[in-house]
Parts: sequence; structure tokens; C-alpha cells
Amino acid sequence: MYQYQYLFDFTRNVFMKMGCSKEDANIIADVFLAAEIRNHASHGMIRIKEYYELWKAGRINTIPDVKIVYETPGTAVVDGDNAVGMIAASRSMKLAIEKARNAGTGWVATRNSNHFGIAGYYSMMALKHDMIGICLTNANPLVAPTFSVTRMIGTNPIAVAVPALRQPPFVADFATTPIARGKLAVAEKKGENVPFGFVQDKTGKPSDNPAILKSGGSMLTLGGDRLHGSHKGYCLSAIVDIFSSLFSGANFGPFVPPSVAYLPVLQEKVGEGTGHFFGAMRIDAFQPADEFKAKMDQWIETFRSAKPADDQERVLIPGDPEREAESRIMKEGINLVPAVKDDLVAIAGDLNINFV
Amino acid sequence: MYQYQYLFDFTRNVFMKMGCSKEDANIIADVFLAAEIRNHASHGMIRIKEYYELWKAGRINTIPDVKIVYETPGTAVVDGDNAVGMIAASRSMKLAIEKARNAGTGWVATRNSNHFGIAGYYSMMALKHDMIGICLTNANPLVAPTFSVTRMIGTNPIAVAVPALRQPPFVADFATTPIARGKLAVAEKKGENVPFGFVQDKTGKPSDNPAILKSGGSMLTLGGDRLHGSHKGYCLSAIVDIFSSLFSGANFGPFVPPSVAYLPVLQEKVGEGTGHFFGAMRIDAFQPADEFKAKMDQWIETFRSAKPADDQERVLIPGDPEREAESRIMKEGINLVPAVKDDLVAIAGDLNINFV
Repeated sequence: MYQYQYLFDFTRNVFMKMGCSKEDANIIADVFLAAEIRNHASHGMIRIKEYYELWKAGRINTIPDVKIVYETPGTAVVDGDNAVGMIAASRSMKLAIEKARNAGTGWVATRNSNHFGIAGYYSMMALKHDMIGICLTNANPLVAPTFSVTRMIGTNPIAVAVPALRQPPFVADFATTPIARGKLAVAEKKGENVPFGFVQDKTGKPSDNPAILKSGGSMLTLGGDRLHGSHKGYCLSAIVDIFSSLFSGANFGPFVPPSVAYLPVLQEKVGEGTGHFFGAMRIDAFQPADEFKAKMDQWIETFRSAKPADDQERVLIPGDPEREAESRIMKEGINLVPAVKDDLVAIAGDLNINFV
Repeated sequence: MYQYQYLFDFTRNVFMKMGCSKEDANIIADVFLAAEIRNHASHGMIRIKEYYELWKAGRINTIPDVKIVYETPGTAVVDGDNAVGMIAASRSMKLAIEKARNAGTGWVATRNSNHFGIAGYYSMMALKHDMIGICLTNANPLVAPTFSVTRMIGTNPIAVAVPALRQPPFVADFATTPIARGKLAVAEKKGENVPFGFVQDKTGKPSDNPAILKSGGSMLTLGGDRLHGSHKGYCLSAIVDIFSSLFSGANFGPFVPPSVAYLPVLQEKVGEGTGHFFGAMRIDAFQPADEFKAKMDQWIETFRSAKPADDQERVLIPGDPEREAESRIMKEGINLVPAVKDDLVAIAGDLNINFV
């Protein structure tokens, strides 16, 4: 088990060795560790290697000039200058919050960025300002639109954070596919099949093979098949893609650059890098903040009091599982699987820093 | 088969007889008929009886004073004065568009409203202004949150309309459940079972019985079960509920009043009526509108060129099925099933107008 601070310092040091300023490296480490303690290890320390490889391949900029290229009082377009995604994203969300402070709501579209970790992190930045936070991003094309076999679109997550008064905040952060890609890799390693409804083969036939992406298969959108509403999942991931890329001038759909160095950058591009979209909405642009937040307490208490199904203990509010993981993991420490530890030891060796 | 204009005039006359101004009745008829020609008959003429019964029961206001109760340059809260939903909704969306014209984006939360027909109608109002239109609404609680058996939340739809240049617009309009409630009624009438993943019984066990709602069952959120991502559908319908009710001061979740007269109004309320949320975003608050729309053409053409699965003809863009239905139905006419025709004949008799 690792202590939070040890992994935080290590991550910060890795990114500083890669050229990041201390301030930027702090933000990056904060996002990586937030993923770990919120029990989304798929977006945590396991990904440091991917960022490191991208940097070695010269495909990511650790000293970016992130800048506003267009703005109105309530909106802006930000160019990330090919930054590590966390840097472009956190500056963009800060800008959305500033704009909301003055204009009531703030909306920032970001292009020329990269993978940014967990979307929920940025939506939650709005909470302490009594604002609702929203974060969308497009991602590597792995998912086929309904009726299709072409990998056209990403797992494109949606994150929305809403503050409450005495209750903890409502934090929804979810991919627009039934599962994250990482779960396929886990099943494959264990030699297990996955349930139908996650992936299809290259002809569009349902598959339970977690390795099917390697032979022309694709992931399915939320809903799984047309009968169960996959076209609604397709609508959702399409909306996320359009907001993330077309407002900002980033690549859309199949043109989103891969977030791993072992996949080549496409020759053809239709925009700059990966795209994100951020929103901040002042609650008191609609209702007195305290009244809204007290009502949100009531909303949360009402839903928490729903009767559980016979085989369930309790009903959850979005954000509950992550918050509970956070208290547990901060106490117990962070577990790294041996393969991840080995990767980090190797990176530490390369960069002449310490990791045990 | 009925001609569009015949049903439009009839619908307008029904609502004028119920006390609506000619202008309001025109808007209401426009929304009802839009549902019919877009092949969403579940939200079309079949519902006129429900509105008529609500009016007879004194539960809906046909001469409402819809008013702005709070506003900032980019946001507003509207009180619908218990109006027919179409009236509160169309005025609110108009206001969102006006606010966007001046402030870049416009966001209007509406309370004290009622069922408003198809959400897509209002999102599409933004298109001709070179804006993206957004519309959300909460609805009768019929759906159980993941892990629960309590009917806490509605089928809460999301509609987003995005303009293109030479291509037709992207129009997504979908419930956050696998299916609309109407499909359960159809299966029940035919004596058919429904696929698993739509409903559960009162203990939370999967069910294929379309009549299960009558014996304590509930609808499931998009995703169907936890394994296939129902918690993401729950997040979505919760977000729609929060935006529709907490920003506006409407009832949330289980307190949303029933949209049919045969269900009693709840004693307990936590706000006023049904809630909606509307957004309008000027494209040129981010990008020159013509460049964005040309890029949207490219987006649409790219996704339309996705390879169809072996058993499919083609890949659709959100909005394609409805637009194609519109051209077909405007030519062929509108078919009403005998039971709906009988209802309309009876209403016509009551109101002393003509319907054959």
C-alpha cells in the first residue's frame, strides 16, 4: 500500500522531470491521485506510462502556452498548445468559473489538448463557488454508432457536479458506453468473457470476446443494442463530440488523436488535437444559492430513501461510491498492481528519481 | 388518412373552445401535429383526450399569465401559471433565444407548467437563429433509480438541435429510459411480452410483463441493469430532473404531478407543477457560424459514411428518421387508430365542433 502523499510527490516529480513547471506538475498529480482515491484506478497511476511515452515521442507539450483565442463575456475558445490534458482542462474550467462569476454562466470550448484524466475533477471545481460544473470531452474512436461497425466515436464522458447544503454534492461522471475500455482489458487478462451488450465483431454481430477490438470489433454505445436504446447512447456520445470539437475547432469523431504513443497519429486531421467542453452555472443566476442547496439536500434525501430492490442494500446518489472510496483509500492507502509498480520503477530509473 | 391541415384546425379549435387564445391554440396545434408528422404519434393526437380531461377537471389553465419571475442578462426563471405545457415551453424557449442573442447564451428554467409534447420541437426553435437549442423536462415518476424499486423519476427526455449548412440539422430527442411508456401500452394491448431490460417487478426482479406497472413494477433507466450501465441512465434522468425542477422551483422526482386526470394530484408538493429547462447557444459566441455549420456538414457526412453492420442498410444521423417521416406523412396523410378517432369524435361532440 502506498500513501497518498508519496504517490503525489512521485507523480509531480515525474512531470517536473518531463519539463512541467512545479505549479503545473502539482495540478497533474492532483488529478492522477483524485482518480486513484475515487476508485477510478483506470485513470490513475496506470496511465502515467502512457503520458511518459507520449512525451518521449514528442507528442505532448509540457511547457505549453495555453491561450484564449476567442471570447465573449460568457464564452471562450481556448487553444491548449498540445498541453498535457490536465493543464489545458484546469485552466479552461477556471476560465469558465470566472466568466460565470461575471456573466451568470460561463462556457469554454478547448482544442489542441490531450487526455485529461477524470472528467469529474473539473466539474467539481465549480462546487465551492456555488456553481454547477459541467465537463465533456471526446476521446479515441473505439465505439460504433448504432447500426454500424465503424469505430467512429469515443467513450465520451459527461460530468455534472451540483452543490448541496448539508448533504455531500451530487457528482455524476460517466462514459456514454456501458463500460470503460479498461474493463475489457481486465477481462482479457483474466481469460474471461464479457456480457453481451458491451462489444460487437467486425460484422456487427454481438460478441462476448473482450479482445474483439483487436480483430476489427468495436464497443457499443450505452443501451447496447437498438432494442434497448443504443441509439440514445449514440445521441449522447455524438452530442459530447460536437460540443467538444465543433465549438473549439478540435478533431471530431474518428479523427481524435490516439492518447497512447503506440498508435500512430492519423495523417488526416479536421481540427487541432483532442477537444473538451466546460460549463459553470451560478446557482444564483436562477435561485438564491442557499435555497437551492437546501432543496438539493431534500432531493438527495428523497432519492436516498427509495426502497432498495430485494437483493440490494441501499440506493445510491451519484457521487456516493467515489466519496466513500475516498475516505477508505485515504485511510488504507493506495494499492498498485505489480505491473504498474514495475512501470513506475522503470520510469523513475529513466528520469533519475526515486520510486520503491 | 387525415390531412395535416384538417387535424391542425381541429386541434386549434378544441383548444380555443377550452378557452385558449387563437395565438396560443395555434402553437399547441403546431406541437401536436409536429409529433404526428415526425412519427411520434405517442405524443400526438392520442394525447388530446388527456389534455381535455385535465381541463375539465380544472387542473390546467388555458388563459395563463406566463411570467418571468427572475432574470439576469443570460438566465431567467419563468412561472407558467399552470399553463398548457406548450404555451409555457414555447414562451420560455423564445426567451432563451432572446437572451442568447444579447448575452451569447440563454438559459431559462420553467416551473408551474404541464406536459409539453415533444421536447425536440423547442430545441429546434433555435436552429433558424444559428443557435444550438437544448430542452429538458421532468415527467411523471414511473422509473426506479438503479438498485431501487420505488418509482422516483420520469422518462425525462433530452433534446439537442445543432444547425448544419447544406445538410439537414442534427436533432437528438430521446427519453433517458430504453423505451417510451407508450410502447408498454401497445405491447399490453397486443397481449405480447416485452424484452427484458425495460421493466422490473415490485421486488426488483427483471420482468417481461408490459402491465407490470399496474402491480407495483417500475420502468428501468437507460442501460437496463447495473451491469449494462443503468446507473448512467439514472445519472442522466437525475440531471434532467435537477435542471428542470431545482433551477425553476418546480416539483422534483416523485412529486412531479401526473399528466393524466385519472391519477390524483399528490397532497405533498415540493414546488410548483412540472419543470422544464431550455438553452440557446449562439454558435458565433464560439466560432463564425458559417464555418461551424460547414464543419457540421462534414461531421454528418463522416458519420453517414460509417460502414453499416451486415444486417443493416445504412447508418443514421440523429434527426434523420423524423425528417424522413415528415416528408412521407405530409404526402400520405396522418393515420389515426380507431380508438383515437372515437375519442376525438366524442370531444368534438362535447365542444360542439365538427370531427369526422
